[in-house]
Amino acid sequence: MKYVYDFAEGNRDLKDLLGGKGANLAEMSNLGLPVPPGFTITTAACKVYLDTGEVPVGLSDEIGEHLASMEKAMDKTLGDAEDPLLVSVRSGAAFSMPGMMETVLNVGLNDESVHGLAARSGSERFAWDSYRRLIQMFGKTVLHIEGSRFDEALDAAKKANGSDDDLDLDADDIRELVAAYKEIVAKESGRDFPTDPREQLDLAINAVFSSWNSDRAVLYRRQERIPGDLGTAVSVVSMVFGNLGMDSGTGVAFTRDPGTGAQGLYGDYLQNAQGEDVVAGIRNTLPLSAMEGVQKQAYDELLQTMAKLERHYLDLCDIEFTVESDKLWMLQTRVGKRTAGAAFRIATQLVDEGLIDLDEALNRVTGAQLMQLMFPQFDDEADKTQIGKGMSASPGAAVGKVVFDSATAVEWAGRGEDVILVRRETNPDDLNGMIAAQGILTSRGGKTSHAAVVARGMGKTCVCGADNLDVRVKRRYFSAGGGVQVSEGDVISIDGSTGAVYLGEVPVVPSPVVEYFEGKLDPDSEEADDLVRGVHRLMNHADDVRRLKVRANSDTGDDSRRARHFGAEGIGLCRTEHMFLGERREHVQRLILAESDEDIEAALAALLPFQRADFVEILEAMDGLPVTIRLLDPPLHEFLPDLTDLSVRVAVAEARDEPDEEAQTLMEAVQRLHEENPMLGLRGVRLGLVVPGLFKLQTRAIAEATAELIKAGKHPIPEIMIPLVGAVQELEIIREQTEQVLADVADEQDVELHALIGTMIELPRAALTADQIAEAAEFFSFGTNDLTQTTWGFSRDDVEASFFSQYLELGIFGISPFETLDFEGVGELVRIGVRKGREGRPDLKIGICGEHGGDPESVHFFHEVDLDYVSCSPFRVPVARLEAGRAALLGGGSDSR
Amino acid sequence: MKYVYDFAEGNRDLKDLLGGKGANLAEMSNLGLPVPPGFTITTAACKVYLDTGEVPVGLSDEIGEHLASMEKAMDKTLGDAEDPLLVSVRSGAAFSMPGMMETVLNVGLNDESVHGLAARSGSERFAWDSYRRLIQMFGKTVLHIEGSRFDEALDAAKKANGSDDDLDLDADDIRELVAAYKEIVAKESGRDFPTDPREQLDLAINAVFSSWNSDRAVLYRRQERIPGDLGTAVSVVSMVFGNLGMDSGTGVAFTRDPGTGAQGLYGDYLQNAQGEDVVAGIRNTLPLSAMEGVQKQAYDELLQTMAKLERHYLDLCDIEFTVESDKLWMLQTRVGKRTAGAAFRIATQLVDEGLIDLDEALNRVTGAQLMQLMFPQFDDEADKTQIGKGMSASPGAAVGKVVFDSATAVEWAGRGEDVILVRRETNPDDLNGMIAAQGILTSRGGKTSHAAVVARGMGKTCVCGADNLDVRVKRRYFSAGGGVQVSEGDVISIDGSTGAVYLGEVPVVPSPVVEYFEGKLDPDSEEADDLVRGVHRLMNHADDVRRLKVRANSDTGDDSRRARHFGAEGIGLCRTEHMFLGERREHVQRLILAESDEDIEAALAALLPFQRADFVEILEAMDGLPVTIRLLDPPLHEFLPDLTDLSVRVAVAEARDEPDEEAQTLMEAVQRLHEENPMLGLRGVRLGLVVPGLFKLQTRAIAEATAELIKAGKHPIPEIMIPLVGAVQELEIIREQTEQVLADVADEQDVELHALIGTMIELPRAALTADQIAEAAEFFSFGTNDLTQTTWGFSRDDVEASFFSQYLELGIFGISPFETLDFEGVGELVRIGVRKGREGRPDLKIGICGEHGGDPESVHFFHEVDLDYVSCSPFRVPVARLEAGRAALLGGGSDSR
Repeated sequence: MKYVYDFAEGNRDLKDLLGGKGANLAEMSNLGLPVPPGFTITTAACKVYLDTGEVPVGLSDEIGEHLASMEKAMDKTLGDAEDPLLVSVRSGAAFSMPGMMETVLNVGLNDESVHGLAARSGSERFAWDSYRRLIQMFGKTVLHIEGSRFDEALDAAKKANGSDDDLDLDADDIRELVAAYKEIVAKESGRDFPTDPREQLDLAINAVFSSWNSDRAVLYRRQERIPGDLGTAVSVVSMVFGNLGMDSGTGVAFTRDPGTGAQGLYGDYLQNAQGEDVVAGIRNTLPLSAMEGVQKQAYDELLQTMAKLERHYLDLCDIEFTVESDKLWMLQTRVGKRTAGAAFRIATQLVDEGLIDLDEALNRVTGAQLMQLMFPQFDDEADKTQIGKGMSASPGAAVGKVVFDSATAVEWAGRGEDVILVRRETNPDDLNGMIAAQGILTSRGGKTSHAAVVARGMGKTCVCGADNLDVRVKRRYFSAGGGVQVSEGDVISIDGSTGAVYLGEVPVVPSPVVEYFEGKLDPDSEEADDLVRGVHRLMNHADDVRRLKVRANSDTGDDSRRARHFGAEGIGLCRTEHMFLGERREHVQRLILAESDEDIEAALAALLPFQRADFVEILEAMDGLPVTIRLLDPPLHEFLPDLTDLSVRVAVAEARDEPDEEAQTLMEAVQRLHEENPMLGLRGVRLGLVVPGLFKLQTRAIAEATAELIKAGKHPIPEIMIPLVGAVQELEIIREQTEQVLADVADEQDVELHALIGTMIELPRAALTADQIAEAAEFFSFGTNDLTQTTWGFSRDDVEASFFSQYLELGIFGISPFETLDFEGVGELVRIGVRKGREGRPDLKIGICGEHGGDPESVHFFHEVDLDYVSCSPFRVPVARLEAGRAALLGGGSDSR
Repeated sequence: MKYVYDFAEGNRDLKDLLGGKGANLAEMSNLGLPVPPGFTITTAACKVYLDTGEVPVGLSDEIGEHLASMEKAMDKTLGDAEDPLLVSVRSGAAFSMPGMMETVLNVGLNDESVHGLAARSGSERFAWDSYRRLIQMFGKTVLHIEGSRFDEALDAAKKANGSDDDLDLDADDIRELVAAYKEIVAKESGRDFPTDPREQLDLAINAVFSSWNSDRAVLYRRQERIPGDLGTAVSVVSMVFGNLGMDSGTGVAFTRDPGTGAQGLYGDYLQNAQGEDVVAGIRNTLPLSAMEGVQKQAYDELLQTMAKLERHYLDLCDIEFTVESDKLWMLQTRVGKRTAGAAFRIATQLVDEGLIDLDEALNRVTGAQLMQLMFPQFDDEADKTQIGKGMSASPGAAVGKVVFDSATAVEWAGRGEDVILVRRETNPDDLNGMIAAQGILTSRGGKTSHAAVVARGMGKTCVCGADNLDVRVKRRYFSAGGGVQVSEGDVISIDGSTGAVYLGEVPVVPSPVVEYFEGKLDPDSEEADDLVRGVHRLMNHADDVRRLKVRANSDTGDDSRRARHFGAEGIGLCRTEHMFLGERREHVQRLILAESDEDIEAALAALLPFQRADFVEILEAMDGLPVTIRLLDPPLHEFLPDLTDLSVRVAVAEARDEPDEEAQTLMEAVQRLHEENPMLGLRGVRLGLVVPGLFKLQTRAIAEATAELIKAGKHPIPEIMIPLVGAVQELEIIREQTEQVLADVADEQDVELHALIGTMIELPRAALTADQIAEAAEFFSFGTNDLTQTTWGFSRDDVEASFFSQYLELGIFGISPFETLDFEGVGELVRIGVRKGREGRPDLKIGICGEHGGDPESVHFFHEVDLDYVSCSPFRVPVARLEAGRAALLGGGSDSR
């Protein structure tokens, strides 16, 4: 088995073996680009080392051979006293794990070779500082010495020098520091710092292998759902130096603007500097174009190289390079990250340039990017004062007055003010404030913090971890550095898509992409820019290639019309709960408090005209398209006041000797209906079976609305959906009564009435017995919200605020299972339900109407398991259309049906 | 295809084809017993008829042939004017469906043959009454005429005669009634009553076929989970008459006493009577032995026949017979039902008689019977005044004062009185009263009524549907007929195992079987009767043959010692919740209200000695046997007062201007922890992950208790079980910390500590991802209570009272899924969990610790899916041992492990 690949032996398809970094270095090398010589040790070698604690037999010899040819290529010898070859030892796995594993630079320096480096580079200080860094990195990474020990020695040196800046240390100071560092190594590790260059190299390689299993790497992988047994590759690369004088330098560049998608080079350059200086931002970089004036030859070569890379990768490339004494070296490349707008623009540009076809262009954009483009955004043109930057935790543009606690948020919002809740971090006590606020801003915590998780769950704008802000809750202000202080009541604006925090009100502009979807912006008109045109082209292509249909969840005529604009091909979930609220509530209470069958019938009869009118509006809005109407799902006591409130009202009235009879009556009814766990109680089909007439009323309203529209020459297509079915027997009974009502109304109205009758699959038992249930159902619709709740045994309302953020941090979830379907658990039930359902009824129509229907990753899953359609909120319909197209191109699923 | 089988052609193994009745008639016929000639039309013919609406081609001819041979055997012709053969047309399916389908008697009578029957039988009245009954049965069953139409005519005839007794009608009266019946048939059905005997026969057969799908039959099958497509067989049997004079008669008999199991004949006989007279109980029957004196010849033949039957069936047989003019005819036989005590006695008697072996004897008794024998019983010897009889809805013997509503029950029970709640029927409002009462008695409703379902769920004695009782709730008494009136406060006794209701206090005696299990009664001693000896022998045999181990659920030392007596081979579930109650509650509240880590640690430290002492006691009681300890499962707010109560307390105090600060503090804590659906909230492993130190405290207590016992020379075997795991990542984290605590304590105490670490499988996701979870678990224990709740999406507490009785009546459940495991839904998850679990870890130990572990049917299921053990309440341990033995004999499951 071969464990070491020279760059010339690899290519970009070998990521599993060589890691992303190694594979791309090899690819560039083979393109004839100037990559410093080097080789990559495979992940297979790492796995052996991790399993056995020993490197595989033969690895050492292989490394020796590759090292020799590298020395030959560079015409230098590792650690040579006169002209030493130095190498970096870099980690790099198949999946990007930024900053999680170790790297050791400057391997090859010792008490002799440091002189050679000084002579060759002409800088004593540079040589000794490189040596110092090697000992520090090696000490921490290989010998596991606390980094603080080295920092203390450095601080002592600076103090002795009367300065607090590293740069004030001269070569002699640093030479002394090297001696001190070596003492630290000897004392802390019990061994001397190894001066043999090859020993340095071997130990560094093993240390990088081991860093695959560092605590932070393990946690990161658990969070990102990266398998733990892949191992990392290790690339050993000749060191090149951008800080050897004004004919040297270093930079990062993109082949197009990753922010806007604009064509042409984009990047930063820094003369006489090393890569870490660019990243550290200590010195001001030049725009890449300015390089032409100072290092024309290297610049021209860079331009050619980047053009070559883009034509080769057929995509925006992101590179790192160094110029050492006028010689260009390419240190890294990869397909570059970009903003949502840039993604759409670049994809269509590349089509126009003939580099890729529309299928590939569609593959290059994502539903998540489209979603970002659909949020309202702050006006680009407006004057803005940015005072902070955090993580883009939940997208959107929110403007409001700063408040510092939940109670104030609720109070101010209650009187009609827009507020932004600002906290160091949030906890479950902040829930009401988060609900009341337009947006949430925290100074601590990342994308898995409580604030981020809960805000995303609510679809509320959130910026978190804006760590330049110092939040003083008790003193009711936060400071943002530079003397900026924002008090409670001051207005700020936060951008959940970029993480920016602005002082004052920034004007919000509607998304042109949404205007396009709404038909208000013609993509072929002058007003439309290339972004809208790009979206238009790719959406059309997605619609051409997708197999999954896309419907919307909508309970009203307005939403249904909107959904149709957004491309919905029907309503997948029309909830009927709201039809029992508002002015209808009195009849519902009458129904609940009824003491005789006559009372029940009268209350139901009073509700009929309301329901009928609701259905007429929705069916008319979706004329000619199917509308799946779900019969009543929530428990009846949801239509009554809260038990604790009522009990307090009754008790206080009694304490005051002014008995409140109405409250008493209501309280007794609520007590009678009270359930400890209403989500697991008398609701859905159970309610339909236990409260006679309830589902019949709803079916009659649907039937009469349908008959009315048919007589008016329309084409209503209602589908009746029974919620919360766990056993086919439940469905059989309701099905029979539903068919009877349809037949009765057809007779009465003298029209032909047809409606598919189906059920939600939202309980594990429904999925497990789907073969039986399918015998009584013409369609299934997976209710993945409830299915997630019952499969995991937690209710979203109760647990999202109480432990989801901790679960995300512990890596138990990679993402909330309410955002992206839990493919392994809930998804397994979906697979079982689909398989058994089609066993029971081969032509069963199967969809999904939980919120996952609009989640990009989940759409791919639903395509793969061969659903017929997804249904999601109107706003997510374009996202689902796009992802359904992408899923069809990626394959999976069956096209045979 | 052959559709008709002569009795000589069938046998008892052909039940699927010939139905139970037809198969046993054939079996007797082949034994040479005197069965009236006849034949059976197969269920296959029925299926064709039900599918197509037509009898299969050739059936009519086949019937003709078999009828001809029957006529030959009887030397009579169907419907002959001189000496008619009459036949009965009887339904009979593979599964017993008593009274659900139709039977038509006296087929062959018409205006001519009625005279022949009169002449032959010597009774005009008998002949015309037989004819009248045929028209009525035929009219109802075949022509679907409302039975009330015939009843009205009968009433009119009686009224004209000035009597209200059928028997006062003479032959002429009945002849007129026949004419009236025929008019009813003509008017209601639009056709004349068919006089052609063969036409009568064919129509009756088709009507019996159709009765398979009558509403009540469909409902019954749904309730009993009998497949709907089996169809019924139809037996056509020559009519014989026991009412042709004093040399005729009819009776029922058992080959042993089905009440006690005593050897020797047992039955009733009635001279000059028909079977329905015996059943109707109008005339007093004679004990079977008295038959010898009146009809010696037939009696002797009966004795020989019954002996033959018992030796052939090797079991207690239950028969019906008729003597027509001194000639014995056997009309039916089947293996007879028997009481629980009789079952054990008969089974061991048959072994002693050499008729069956111990395996077969074990197969003849059931866990349900054993359970009945374990309930306390009313003293047989005591004087008792029985005042009513209802259904045995939930077993046990309860004595108490009569109360008529829930509030009174709660109030009286609160002051220490034993009460029996008496209602016409119960509803969810009666729940508190049912909890407070010793027993429940209703005058209405069957075994699926609300009272029955809820009482069984609670394990509370219940008699329901005692319909001779007239319950007057408002007037606070019930009358029992015969002038007996029982007022509120009077004492009654109810027997949930027999349905008997007694006036006054009946002494309760402990079960001798329980005394035997407890070691208080030596089965070989004089005090033990043959019942105890039978139980002893069969339990020993069950233990010899079973593969499933049986453990007990126990949280205390006392229960553990008891369980050990009952044969428990370990503790399968030791809940730790109660260890946070009582005097420990103050520390728990401190823990919940803690504001700093120090407070939390102090509260946990205070709990440690209590927990350790609990574990020492239990581990000591089960020394040498495994004890599975479940870490804390319920949500923390269960240890705090109720939110509504606190809110009322705070509000009332405020209204009175006397603020209650303690209540206020508690209320705020409860509000913070409040969950809408606590069952789906922060509990189980989630709590362990979110509240630092909680599970560590418990693990430390277990480890220290174990160390203490080891040092004392004992052999404690603790197993640590993590509840509510849904994802392997949860378990991995807890597992790591648990192992650390075990290692720490082992170090501190200087002992070797080992404990298996495993998890409950009680969420669908845990079963679906069991392969992953098994990698971090050394054992699984299915928590089928929670698994049932999440799989069905209902909580037992919330729904058992609100809709289970309706679900049972509608046939959606055959039995509550909390009593017997839902094999199709929840059972499928168990199967998946077992399969995947062993994929993940081949030597995984798998048990079940939900209440289903002691349910007979469920034990068979757990054997079949290859669990290693079941765990149930101590009282159910013998039941589980017995059923595990029976399951092993019946096969299924794997013996290879």
